[in-house]
Amino acid sequence: MSEALEAVRALTFDVFGTVVDWRSSIIREGEALGQARGLRVDWAKFADAWRALYQPMMQRVRTGALPWTKLDDLHRMSLERLLGEFGIGGLSADEIDHLNRAWHRLDPWPDTVPGLTRLRRTYILATLSNGNVALIMNMARRAGLPWDVVLGAEVARHYKPDPEAYLVTADLLGLGPAQCMMVAAHNNDLAAASRLGFRTAFVHRRTEYGPDQTSNLKAEGPWDVVAEDFVDLATKLHC
Amino acid sequence: MSEALEAVRALTFDVFGTVVDWRSSIIREGEALGQARGLRVDWAKFADAWRALYQPMMQRVRTGALPWTKLDDLHRMSLERLLGEFGIGGLSADEIDHLNRAWHRLDPWPDTVPGLTRLRRTYILATLSNGNVALIMNMARRAGLPWDVVLGAEVARHYKPDPEAYLVTADLLGLGPAQCMMVAAHNNDLAAASRLGFRTAFVHRRTEYGPDQTSNLKAEGPWDVVAEDFVDLATKLHC
Repeated sequence: MSEALEAVRALTFDVFGTVVDWRSSIIREGEALGQARGLRVDWAKFADAWRALYQPMMQRVRTGALPWTKLDDLHRMSLERLLGEFGIGGLSADEIDHLNRAWHRLDPWPDTVPGLTRLRRTYILATLSNGNVALIMNMARRAGLPWDVVLGAEVARHYKPDPEAYLVTADLLGLGPAQCMMVAAHNNDLAAASRLGFRTAFVHRRTEYGPDQTSNLKAEGPWDVVAEDFVDLATKLHC
Repeated sequence: MSEALEAVRALTFDVFGTVVDWRSSIIREGEALGQARGLRVDWAKFADAWRALYQPMMQRVRTGALPWTKLDDLHRMSLERLLGEFGIGGLSADEIDHLNRAWHRLDPWPDTVPGLTRLRRTYILATLSNGNVALIMNMARRAGLPWDVVLGAEVARHYKPDPEAYLVTADLLGLGPAQCMMVAAHNNDLAAASRLGFRTAFVHRRTEYGPDQTSNLKAEGPWDVVAEDFVDLATKLHC
């Protein structure tokens, strides 16, 4: 292992797409609701539409058009709009709340828990997600994700790729950026972390956006590690 | 269980004294250093003196005399002073750093891990400590403390009993104060939490300050639960 990699003490994880399969999980939640309430909706389209509003909503916070707003609340604003666009009516307030919290119930990829379990023997495992603390925590309790700490955008009050999201996380870990390795399935997340001095690991998630995914199919930067999945990452980091 | 207790979703823990036995641990660390370096020091007096500077140092932050300063750094400022007062010289910078980080290596009380393990089946377990995130995280990894999230003063940038420490923690958990139960061996911590609407559990730690302890020997308020230790707390909360 190189000297640069030997300095790494903590792995900081992107969560949506990297740790959990948000698309399949939102489709599953939608189908369950649809069946219960007799709704005819293309839930794959619904999931993609919900996720398509993710960056534009965060961008309103990044630019200051919206004051700090946690992701649960951005998800909710997007959901209200999509219920109209997809012609979904008649849901109770509790049903809408439950659907919005589908993001708290995302399933991990099959390699996630075994990989994290191995990685945790050597490394501090921290989330560095745009998801709010309660969302990531509830997801972790349900899925058995063994985080040491849940940090990221809400604690920094800045959404990635704003530098503060990464720098506040490293500071709270008591580490310098070069002692942290960002783990993500997204090249732009790694690029932002790398510019601040983080080490980087790209993990392939070729179906995050479904069978026709066109982006992030391969590593597009000089990342320190490129892994097939979390088990492969553990092997490559000698865990 | 009363209706008020049934609303509780998360237990928020004081850590120093309540979860870990800081005094015995600091004495142990001091004795190890003393033996290695041939120092003649009364390490019990040293531990008590270090802890005696804890509240005055935080008070300087609470009043604004010092800007936000994390506990590791307050501990270090106190330590520099005590090394002089106890006539401890000749330590290397690394040895002083290691001694300062003794607070990251505190041992849990014997009931702590079995009690938390039972409590976690039902409740979210969060720290609500004046210790900084890295300190509490490193302690948890070493002692096997199964926290769901590490929160508290550093994330809120306010030391207990400032209200922000409690309210920011509840907000990050996505809960109202009445859905949180503060667990502490200190009546003043429970009083501050209770004023903000938290439920409260007092846990007896009759030797936290050594064999001659005079304070916090009993519950001094109308706390929701009074327990002998964490295993008893788990039993009283039907976990």
